[in-house]
Amino acid sequence: MTPGRPVPPPPAKPIAPVPDAMPTGAAGEGTGVRAPAYGAVSGDSGLVPLTVARRAPKPDDVEIAIEFCGLCHSDVHATRGEWGGQAYPLVPGHEIVGTVSRTGSDVTDFAVGDRVGVGCMVDSCRACGSCLDGLEQYCENGMTGTYGAKDRRNGDAITQGGYSSSIVVDRRYVLRVPESLDPAAVAPLLCAGVTTFSPLRHFGVEDGDVVGVVGLGGLGHMAVKLAKAMGAEVVVFTTSESKVPAALELGADRVVLSRDAAAMAAADRTVDLIIDTVAAPHDLNPFFRTLRVDGALFQLGLPAEAMPPVSPGALIRRRIAYAGSLIGGIGETQEMLDFCAEHGVVADIELVTAAQLNEAYDRMVAGDVKYRFVLDTSTLQAPAEEADA
Amino acid sequence: MTPGRPVPPPPAKPIAPVPDAMPTGAAGEGTGVRAPAYGAVSGDSGLVPLTVARRAPKPDDVEIAIEFCGLCHSDVHATRGEWGGQAYPLVPGHEIVGTVSRTGSDVTDFAVGDRVGVGCMVDSCRACGSCLDGLEQYCENGMTGTYGAKDRRNGDAITQGGYSSSIVVDRRYVLRVPESLDPAAVAPLLCAGVTTFSPLRHFGVEDGDVVGVVGLGGLGHMAVKLAKAMGAEVVVFTTSESKVPAALELGADRVVLSRDAAAMAAADRTVDLIIDTVAAPHDLNPFFRTLRVDGALFQLGLPAEAMPPVSPGALIRRRIAYAGSLIGGIGETQEMLDFCAEHGVVADIELVTAAQLNEAYDRMVAGDVKYRFVLDTSTLQAPAEEADA
Repeated sequence: MTPGRPVPPPPAKPIAPVPDAMPTGAAGEGTGVRAPAYGAVSGDSGLVPLTVARRAPKPDDVEIAIEFCGLCHSDVHATRGEWGGQAYPLVPGHEIVGTVSRTGSDVTDFAVGDRVGVGCMVDSCRACGSCLDGLEQYCENGMTGTYGAKDRRNGDAITQGGYSSSIVVDRRYVLRVPESLDPAAVAPLLCAGVTTFSPLRHFGVEDGDVVGVVGLGGLGHMAVKLAKAMGAEVVVFTTSESKVPAALELGADRVVLSRDAAAMAAADRTVDLIIDTVAAPHDLNPFFRTLRVDGALFQLGLPAEAMPPVSPGALIRRRIAYAGSLIGGIGETQEMLDFCAEHGVVADIELVTAAQLNEAYDRMVAGDVKYRFVLDTSTLQAPAEEADA
Repeated sequence: MTPGRPVPPPPAKPIAPVPDAMPTGAAGEGTGVRAPAYGAVSGDSGLVPLTVARRAPKPDDVEIAIEFCGLCHSDVHATRGEWGGQAYPLVPGHEIVGTVSRTGSDVTDFAVGDRVGVGCMVDSCRACGSCLDGLEQYCENGMTGTYGAKDRRNGDAITQGGYSSSIVVDRRYVLRVPESLDPAAVAPLLCAGVTTFSPLRHFGVEDGDVVGVVGLGGLGHMAVKLAKAMGAEVVVFTTSESKVPAALELGADRVVLSRDAAAMAAADRTVDLIIDTVAAPHDLNPFFRTLRVDGALFQLGLPAEAMPPVSPGALIRRRIAYAGSLIGGIGETQEMLDFCAEHGVVADIELVTAAQLNEAYDRMVAGDVKYRFVLDTSTLQAPAEEADA
């Protein structure tokens, strides 16, 4: 952590725990647990220690002892209530890696001690066309987010995420984490990794394709690594000259300063696919002009304000597609993890303790992280006994 | 034609002819011809009679006696100089149908008397990746438009289009017109037809897909017919209740009034592909919401003013693509003509004489045509002898 940055102190009195997601023992076996966690109790509380109730495993459930949880920019927006309609208390975190601590009676594909992961969703309807196609992230009835979502099969309790020592998830939404990879550095693959892997795969990137990456944060650095591992030539577009050495170090073949009109003009019609990870409004038209015929730009970040207008002529003249993409399906997430094991790809991370979470959030907002913070959940402690009633 | 609409009179003095595209006989065999035509001599001249020099056929050339030429909205923009940088005189027209009148010495695939067509381009570089892929419309060195373009292999003369009794085109850019189809009603297939056929094919429309068509003009009515012929269920989106019966008559299964928020909400996630033919600025976000996961919207019209901003969230939540598409390649244009013959598809047209061209333009601008005007070139007459010097 950067010295000198203030870390907001925990509130004097720890917060009441999140209500049980479901009555312990109602459908599960054994008993539920109260897990130490960090979360927000209001939009301006910052992250504070609290406990979260985890149900006893139902027959299809896997209970996971969480080791690491990545910090995603979405966590900041959600805990601060920037997307509106947020229920509190809220424990964020959807880049979860840990080991299986208990399994439900019908679980045969996971055993205690297995290293596993959970990403951005813990359920979906399992019946719509998208779910049946393995595109659970586009579930027509809405996927169940790992935190802050109504848990449809668990009494509509609000889901609570991975800044916690434990979580219970239906086996269908649990991923196998290859043992060969550093588990802390795997955590960001569960969101940042699959979010960039999915459009690269959907576009069919292969040896010799040229992939452009706009923005070099958590998602962008994964896009560079994954595209390189797929055999692509990678060009990073950045507004910041200071990021050039870092981009090259990550494996980028070229860096184009996107505010340099001459450099952008020189990149005309050189790129097959652009992965755009910038979540602030920005003009896409100069990037369309770097694409070849039948090229595509996938936007992954969702700016809070309107984007500048797209020029249809840029799309028409080269049959270019401007597309969006949302994380990835469960099967695809497993494919991504296996791909990363095969190619030795993990995220570049900075490990933080629970006490450093608020400072880490401030640094994320300032763009001061290379490239993903990961919470070491062994540093979580339950709040003082008296308040946890 | 609607009675009562004024037709601007031809100018008192006919206009000097367009300079020869190349010196007659330099590379061709026999002699070139001076063909009666209609064109603009300035942005505000309207269309006036003139003659256009056509080269003697070079070894690979096909000389075509033009029977019919469709009137495309692009013709209006170009002759009025609305796209800027326009050279005059300009003979528009790129929906050309006629019969072969002469062939160059190396032409073996066309014979005198064959019914043929010419669309939006008469040449391209023939060497770039796009040309080699049969995507000549996206030629990296620029396709040669049928009118108003520098004719790269003919001394950079400005090409002159199909409002004329004859044209000479390299055999590689000449299409075979199936004899079973009405030649006048085939003419609009060469632009409006292939412009809608290409994205339908590129998306892979098949039996049971739902295709939305936005706008019911020249392009829109072809999109309805072609999508139906491909086995799709077709829904027309229109702002105008008065167009509902016409849409159904063309074969649409449903019509949604796009300004009716409730009707648009009811159409949520019902459409696989949208062909958007509207060339005025309009908000695409309500249309994105009618698309299913992995749906696409192809915009074909190029508004002169900026479009409203696209909401990336609409694209991200369903992996939707917002794409453009430009006419079609030569091979694809032939495929379209053969498809139309197989399925009995032609355009709905209103035949006009040369003297009615200016009134037809005014009616096109007013949207008062069902659905394409086609010029009967037998009504063209050379201007008075003394001015054609």
